[in-house]
Amino acid sequence: MLKAAREAFAEAGYDRTSVRQVAAAAGVDTALVHHYFGTKEQLFQAVVEFPVDLPTTLARVADGPVGELGQRLVDTFLEAWEHPVSGPALEALIRGALAHRVYGRLIREFFTVHIVRSVGVRLEGVVPTDEVPTRANFVASQLLGLAVVRYLLRFEPMASLPRDVVAATVAPTVQRYLTEEIDALG
Amino acid sequence: MLKAAREAFAEAGYDRTSVRQVAAAAGVDTALVHHYFGTKEQLFQAVVEFPVDLPTTLARVADGPVGELGQRLVDTFLEAWEHPVSGPALEALIRGALAHRVYGRLIREFFTVHIVRSVGVRLEGVVPTDEVPTRANFVASQLLGLAVVRYLLRFEPMASLPRDVVAATVAPTVQRYLTEEIDALG
Repeated sequence: MLKAAREAFAEAGYDRTSVRQVAAAAGVDTALVHHYFGTKEQLFQAVVEFPVDLPTTLARVADGPVGELGQRLVDTFLEAWEHPVSGPALEALIRGALAHRVYGRLIREFFTVHIVRSVGVRLEGVVPTDEVPTRANFVASQLLGLAVVRYLLRFEPMASLPRDVVAATVAPTVQRYLTEEIDALG
Repeated sequence: MLKAAREAFAEAGYDRTSVRQVAAAAGVDTALVHHYFGTKEQLFQAVVEFPVDLPTTLARVADGPVGELGQRLVDTFLEAWEHPVSGPALEALIRGALAHRVYGRLIREFFTVHIVRSVGVRLEGVVPTDEVPTRANFVASQLLGLAVVRYLLRFEPMASLPRDVVAATVAPTVQRYLTEEIDALG
């Protein structure tokens, strides 16, 4: 059922997906979906909380040289988007976030809270603490923009570039936002 | 009527806006809106083609030192987003693009065709010609991501940062994507 829901939300967006469609796609009764997941909103939340084990994943990103944080973060982000389970779930999350203020909150949490909490710890002593939330926002701007262009809007040639080419091109941007001196933020 | 339509699309997105709502907001009859603009889709296209005089704007961006293309492009982009007329129109454009494949095409056109055509000309002899479309996609990823985080999802502190701080932070990223050597693209 979650698989059917993930695909339905990713394909049609939150708004135009009904619990009935999800049930039909999963080959079960609508009542069964409601029984397990509650409302359509709760079903969506079950879907969007599923994609990645965030604490474990971000701990892995944080672990290693600070000078390669950008590379590890971009690699992990692209890997999650190209994974057959978490990819469609992340797509549903972003489409939902842009269609509904409620889901915008989920995305903000994903990026700001989780990245600041786990990766931000590694920035202590590297950049001023009060710059960390701002820097995390700039990281989010590059990563979300990459997801929008490569996976949602499917710009070419971006959508067809090998993952490692994308990662190598974007990693220095993310690294700069994380650890390099940025005069304007001072 | 266009003003009412712009605000309605930006607020509720393409899907959940009706011609009737637009007419009511503008204080006119629905038939009048249909008479001037045709279908809801045509109305939307009138709205999204309105925001910026692209050829003139991008000619201004292209004009000046190549080493400051990134700064001029980011300044112009942020200015358009913070302008009371073009800002809501751009928001409607992006929300529409993410909700409907049809409007995804409009956005791709906006970024790829227009930027490659006018700004790309300035890159002749600076970077290999066959890298220009790819570089334009990376520029789009940073600019669109910035719009999503600052204007659509309104992450804090990003949404409250002064425009010049945002521009100064992001301009080197855009400049690098435009003109600097990127090994992975070679």
